[in-house]
Amino acid sequence: MGKGRLEAFSDGVFAIIITIMVLELHPPEGASFAALKPVLPKFISYVLSFTYIAIYWNNHHHMFQAVKHVNGKVLWCNILLLFCLSLVPFVTAWMGENHFSSSPVALYGIVLLMSALSYPVLLHSLIKLHGKDSLIATSIGKDFKGKISIAIYCAGILVSFINSWMAFALYVLVAIIWFIPDRRIEKRIEKDT
Amino acid sequence: MGKGRLEAFSDGVFAIIITIMVLELHPPEGASFAALKPVLPKFISYVLSFTYIAIYWNNHHHMFQAVKHVNGKVLWCNILLLFCLSLVPFVTAWMGENHFSSSPVALYGIVLLMSALSYPVLLHSLIKLHGKDSLIATSIGKDFKGKISIAIYCAGILVSFINSWMAFALYVLVAIIWFIPDRRIEKRIEKDT
Amino acid sequence: MGKGRLEAFSDGVFAIIITIMVLELHPPEGASFAALKPVLPKFISYVLSFTYIAIYWNNHHHMFQAVKHVNGKVLWCNILLLFCLSLVPFVTAWMGENHFSSSPVALYGIVLLMSALSYPVLLHSLIKLHGKDSLIATSIGKDFKGKISIAIYCAGILVSFINSWMAFALYVLVAIIWFIPDRRIEKRIEKDT
Amino acid sequence: MGKGRLEAFSDGVFAIIITIMVLELHPPEGASFAALKPVLPKFISYVLSFTYIAIYWNNHHHMFQAVKHVNGKVLWCNILLLFCLSLVPFVTAWMGENHFSSSPVALYGIVLLMSALSYPVLLHSLIKLHGKDSLIATSIGKDFKGKISIAIYCAGILVSFINSWMAFALYVLVAIIWFIPDRRIEKRIEKDT
Repeated sequence: MGKGRLEAFSDGVFAIIITIMVLELHPPEGASFAALKPVLPKFISYVLSFTYIAIYWNNHHHMFQAVKHVNGKVLWCNILLLFCLSLVPFVTAWMGENHFSSSPVALYGIVLLMSALSYPVLLHSLIKLHGKDSLIATSIGKDFKGKISIAIYCAGILVSFINSWMAFALYVLVAIIWFIPDRRIEKRIEKDT
Repeated sequence: MGKGRLEAFSDGVFAIIITIMVLELHPPEGASFAALKPVLPKFISYVLSFTYIAIYWNNHHHMFQAVKHVNGKVLWCNILLLFCLSLVPFVTAWMGENHFSSSPVALYGIVLLMSALSYPVLLHSLIKLHGKDSLIATSIGKDFKGKISIAIYCAGILVSFINSWMAFALYVLVAIIWFIPDRRIEKRIEKDT
Repeated sequence: MGKGRLEAFSDGVFAIIITIMVLELHPPEGASFAALKPVLPKFISYVLSFTYIAIYWNNHHHMFQAVKHVNGKVLWCNILLLFCLSLVPFVTAWMGENHFSSSPVALYGIVLLMSALSYPVLLHSLIKLHGKDSLIATSIGKDFKGKISIAIYCAGILVSFINSWMAFALYVLVAIIWFIPDRRIEKRIEKDT
Repeated sequence: MGKGRLEAFSDGVFAIIITIMVLELHPPEGASFAALKPVLPKFISYVLSFTYIAIYWNNHHHMFQAVKHVNGKVLWCNILLLFCLSLVPFVTAWMGENHFSSSPVALYGIVLLMSALSYPVLLHSLIKLHGKDSLIATSIGKDFKGKISIAIYCAGILVSFINSWMAFALYVLVAIIWFIPDRRIEKRIEKDT
């Protein structure tokens, strides 16, 4: 089964998630710059979520460079990832509206953690389909970034109940780690050709 | 006529339907986990609908694997299916807001039933176009899953007026039946090649 | 310049317009079927607009079957058509909320008229680019359907101030005329091959 | 790395940004044409933003005609541009709701300025990847339009505090300058072939 429609559907969902979040940035009542102040936490929240969805799209893009075909199981693992990410607009809005108080920041971390856990599930379904010697299997390595991210999310969720801004800083840290795109597959392709 | 744009347009509509439903999950007023409690029925409702749209996308994807070309009639049958599915966000929100009371659960079932009835209409328009000996015609078989789904939806709609949670359980049952993706076409393609 | 991205962008806009209209179908307050009654005019309004956008997508699809390449002017003519159609969700909501009273029904007709006028503008930009002997030029004929539609929209706009339901009936009539898809191009392609 | 998915994702985001802005055109309370009057500033605001997003899509389309492949850095530069443009619906709504008063008009200009600054960033990442002798590098020239736009936006932001309508007129002026699509790449391709 070709990967074309899975990519098209995923691109659609990524594009919609990343764009509808801006609908939660309701324009303020007043017409002065001061009136924008209460929008600021929502805006910070928006910037972080935009970056995260962009990172996932980026890594998804890199991962599927190495993919040749898909099967029913891959489709469902991909949908699981998209489901987790589809909750990002909800937690982004809740976190922004409540000025980064504990519970919303913890829930934000839980959604990020769920997404981070579902990503390797998709990856392994692809490796299982393509075989242990395939490009996708050999280009992954130890997946250090993925493992450290999960650890930092867990720390962030726990820390959020003590100091929610420190938790937020941890989420920003993970985004920075991933901002440098996943060049593992890119390098392998270059090496092979 | 090529199937490319029908797939692109359908993928777009599927992606939007599945993603805009999250806009109905309005963030709660409070900032505590307890404040999330009233969102819970809406969330359950969201998960079920997300799964259903994913199932339809999945089956649509499988079906069009076996399709070579389309005509005007197929376009309209496809639009009928998309119309039925476009009502899912509306009934999902109504069911979630009213904590799964009778009428909304019944209407949810009616929309699922309409979608389930429009799917074979699209299928037959494709079979008529490709001929009785085509891959799409021979790989369908008796369509047991489709028929049993329609029967369960009817049962669910009737049961909803007695016990709406039992009706909800019936809808979940259909989703489970379909969760195992439609391997009929996949198998036939493998056999032929 | 290839037509691929124009089609992809247009499919995206068509898919979003047709799907976001459902967001205006706000779930009613009550949980009974009687509570759905005030939603009914919005629903009728939704069905008509869904059909219209589907007709435009369908005709756009047929038209671009015969298109080989595009230029800057075609891009802008296409955007003009998409702009007119992007106003459909607004007038649909206004017409539905005001139970088909005169002014909203007239404005709905004006938006339909603008769309109907911008469609031949796009068509002529394509004919100019492809030449008078091209497939797209020869397969159009006298465009009877297009001309009669414009006449009926004008009648509908005028009639709306006397009897808005009669105007609505005229809009339905145009939809029925177009429901039979534009087989002119389809036939020509078949004849040539 | 192929440019296909970058184009598909960008087309999705462009299509969504351009279409969701219409959701801010809430239908007015009354059912008369007079009730539309308060919607008028929002509508003007919508028309300008629709034109701007269409211009960016158009130029993006032209630019990627000359692109052969992309890398991780290009993906991120593209996402930066999309982020800036994703703020357009927010500032459009704020400007429309406040009837073009100073601060919203200034912020609108700031978002346009940010977008205009991020566009050459994307362009230079592409030139760096393709080399100084590539089609994309040689077809750009002195980018007079880009530089004059940035100057006019700066003027508009400053002028908005004196006379916001004059600032608005300056934004319209830039749109008119760009309305004539960027034929530099188009011409070069024609010359080469």
